[in-house]
Amino acid sequence: MTGQLDDSTIYEARVALDDLRDAWSLLDPEERAEAFRSLKAAEAEEFFESLSALDQAQIVLGLPDIERKLWVRSMAPDDLADVVQALPDEGRASVLALLDEPTRKELVALLAYEEDEAGGLMNTRYGRLRPEMSVDEAITYLRKQTPERVESIYYAYVLDQQSQLLGVVSFRQLIMAKGSAKVAEVMTMDLVTVPDEMDQEAVSRLFAQHSYLSLPVVDAQGRMKGVVTADDIVDVVREEATEDIQKIGGSAALEAPYLEVRFLDMIKARAVWLVVLFLGSMLTISAIRTFEGQLAKASVLTAFIAMIISSGGNCGSQASTLVIRAMALGELKMRDWWRVFVREASAGLVLGGILAALGMLRVVIWHHSFEDSSGEPFYGDHYILIGLTVAGSVIGVALWGTLVGALLPFFLKRVGLDPASASAPLVATLSDVTGILIFFSVASTVLSGTLL
Amino acid sequence: MTGQLDDSTIYEARVALDDLRDAWSLLDPEERAEAFRSLKAAEAEEFFESLSALDQAQIVLGLPDIERKLWVRSMAPDDLADVVQALPDEGRASVLALLDEPTRKELVALLAYEEDEAGGLMNTRYGRLRPEMSVDEAITYLRKQTPERVESIYYAYVLDQQSQLLGVVSFRQLIMAKGSAKVAEVMTMDLVTVPDEMDQEAVSRLFAQHSYLSLPVVDAQGRMKGVVTADDIVDVVREEATEDIQKIGGSAALEAPYLEVRFLDMIKARAVWLVVLFLGSMLTISAIRTFEGQLAKASVLTAFIAMIISSGGNCGSQASTLVIRAMALGELKMRDWWRVFVREASAGLVLGGILAALGMLRVVIWHHSFEDSSGEPFYGDHYILIGLTVAGSVIGVALWGTLVGALLPFFLKRVGLDPASASAPLVATLSDVTGILIFFSVASTVLSGTLL
Repeated sequence: MTGQLDDSTIYEARVALDDLRDAWSLLDPEERAEAFRSLKAAEAEEFFESLSALDQAQIVLGLPDIERKLWVRSMAPDDLADVVQALPDEGRASVLALLDEPTRKELVALLAYEEDEAGGLMNTRYGRLRPEMSVDEAITYLRKQTPERVESIYYAYVLDQQSQLLGVVSFRQLIMAKGSAKVAEVMTMDLVTVPDEMDQEAVSRLFAQHSYLSLPVVDAQGRMKGVVTADDIVDVVREEATEDIQKIGGSAALEAPYLEVRFLDMIKARAVWLVVLFLGSMLTISAIRTFEGQLAKASVLTAFIAMIISSGGNCGSQASTLVIRAMALGELKMRDWWRVFVREASAGLVLGGILAALGMLRVVIWHHSFEDSSGEPFYGDHYILIGLTVAGSVIGVALWGTLVGALLPFFLKRVGLDPASASAPLVATLSDVTGILIFFSVASTVLSGTLL
Repeated sequence: MTGQLDDSTIYEARVALDDLRDAWSLLDPEERAEAFRSLKAAEAEEFFESLSALDQAQIVLGLPDIERKLWVRSMAPDDLADVVQALPDEGRASVLALLDEPTRKELVALLAYEEDEAGGLMNTRYGRLRPEMSVDEAITYLRKQTPERVESIYYAYVLDQQSQLLGVVSFRQLIMAKGSAKVAEVMTMDLVTVPDEMDQEAVSRLFAQHSYLSLPVVDAQGRMKGVVTADDIVDVVREEATEDIQKIGGSAALEAPYLEVRFLDMIKARAVWLVVLFLGSMLTISAIRTFEGQLAKASVLTAFIAMIISSGGNCGSQASTLVIRAMALGELKMRDWWRVFVREASAGLVLGGILAALGMLRVVIWHHSFEDSSGEPFYGDHYILIGLTVAGSVIGVALWGTLVGALLPFFLKRVGLDPASASAPLVATLSDVTGILIFFSVASTVLSGTLL
């Protein structure tokens, strides 16, 4: 936008926009389309850009035919591809029919890529130059391209007749160079390129490791296909982290923002894992029943069950989230599993040792501070042995929980699943069942001949 | 880099670089500096850029004086500020002494900002123009600025005498405009600016909502201070997500990548929360002991303790991670707590209902399929009541766990703490203790007059 704008007008427009943003999640689809149409053109554009592809698709569907055509034609192909992907099948055809032939072809090519690979992220509109052009010719040529056709306005890419990528020049380099110089002399040839089928997590690692603002995408034959820019990567990184966090919490990833996802969809995303975990934790019923005889003789042990198994779950949750995140950041590769094993075994022993000391202390302090119902010292004659049972179990459970948490993500990745599925609740449930077995095994050994 | 480069040379250099990357975490500081010095200039630069500020600081400290001076002087002020912040105090002064006066001043100004606010992220080197310049004058002026002084090469910012930000022009706009036009006529005035004290999480939301590649940073008086670019935001988003994930897993955030953080630092980051949670879970000992009398009469209940409390923990972990992430993404504000409460109360009841049905089913099936030690049906005459006790407790515990998990992040934010501290293990531990109380209260009500 060029020229003078009255400050207070801008301010008022922003306030109305903010109101709409706040109310958005409360509106149903028709109300949304209506509210959207009441915005001024510039506001509408800003607001539309800030919405998710799903919300954009709903608006596009809710607009009258002519407005729909205008919106769809004004969108960049990569953004439009996301919207089309979010549409139901019958909506897709109707939107594709609104486009001119070259754009439709571009769009169909983009739709062939998975949403989460470089080809699905890239923009197909970028400045193209030939190496034999002079700098002056290049500037004139780039000026002629309409702004809407070239979203990435900072670099132009130098291609040969077969669309092979030869180099890149920034607008800055063009301005600084002599007008008579050839593009081939000015361009940078030491290029980092992104394969079109590279996973978006790998692409985002490239952007994070180096400070690129945009990277060219090429196919297996080295032909330039499009450009990925850092602003798209910001979205990718946020989405991937959101998915991982939701999985770590023990639900499936939600398809929409928390307040917007339909209640039943949310229940579905959460119920599946809860049921699996619940069925898993039923094993604790049988585990505890197995040791009924021991509990009858030493009922004092019952009180410690919850504390001991939860310490295993806590150690495991820590280990699994640290490992899952390090994997997602590319800090840990499959081959590092042994180093992780060694590190976490030591960590499990040290952390378990600290907790075990506290557990022992608790038994000793309570024994000396309280009396049982018949007026005797709290834990009876064998309180040292009870303390040792608790301490030994805590070390064992902490070590086991830590190792399960640390290695489960490796195992899941090895069999082709998402390491983030090694959620805190899954690790906790796995260490609950084994925790009970560890507890009663330690108890049998330590208390045999006295309480048991 | 301009000109021809032999492909195989680049390839070999990359392989050596990849080897170094892989071995990096195994090297001690002196070996790192040595390995780093063995790289060729271009490789060294690429590698240095990809390291964390902490690693960069170690390398800078390990270099001989002359090389250190060269490296430090070649760095952009914002990157250098991060390195200086990672140095021990005595190292800081020695690095500042290597700089020329204007750069030192720039750096000291940057160091005054917190690392995690816009001022700590921004680059202070950007193109500055005056509104009354002509486009031709502007291009000539920008050409004269050395590339190292202007990292953000896509926009130039138009400032008045008091450094007030008036507008922005892209290099593209300058190329397209008439040479005689005034900068004031070409520039865009409808600007989004970032306050210098804005938290980096809020800045990253701005970048994610709109597709900006860079935004100007201004102080409270509207004076331009620097530029934040999307590539820095990619790093911010990754770091913030890493911190949240580590906290959600129940440890403090690690200061370095998993394999590089010192063992003792990792133990410290993990032990504090484990100890707190362990002390918290000790309450379960007293809780269970309180109901000793009931357990003596109905020992069958013991077997269900672990399963019932863990279902509360699982429901709570789901709810808390969903809410924590939605808060971090700006989808949930403090005022939404009531909507979340209503939504999660319904979700807790539905999810608890599903699990309760499974729990009931388990009791009934086992009762009819197995016999107890004396050859009677497994759960005795009152198996329906036992099933109802389990089912009722599971609903209560699931509802409670869900609500604790969903509302704890709001509470933590309200009292000024990080909502992500509502970790899965913390929520699980909180619902363990109350889960036991719920279980035995339900048991007393349902089984009173029969088993109890």
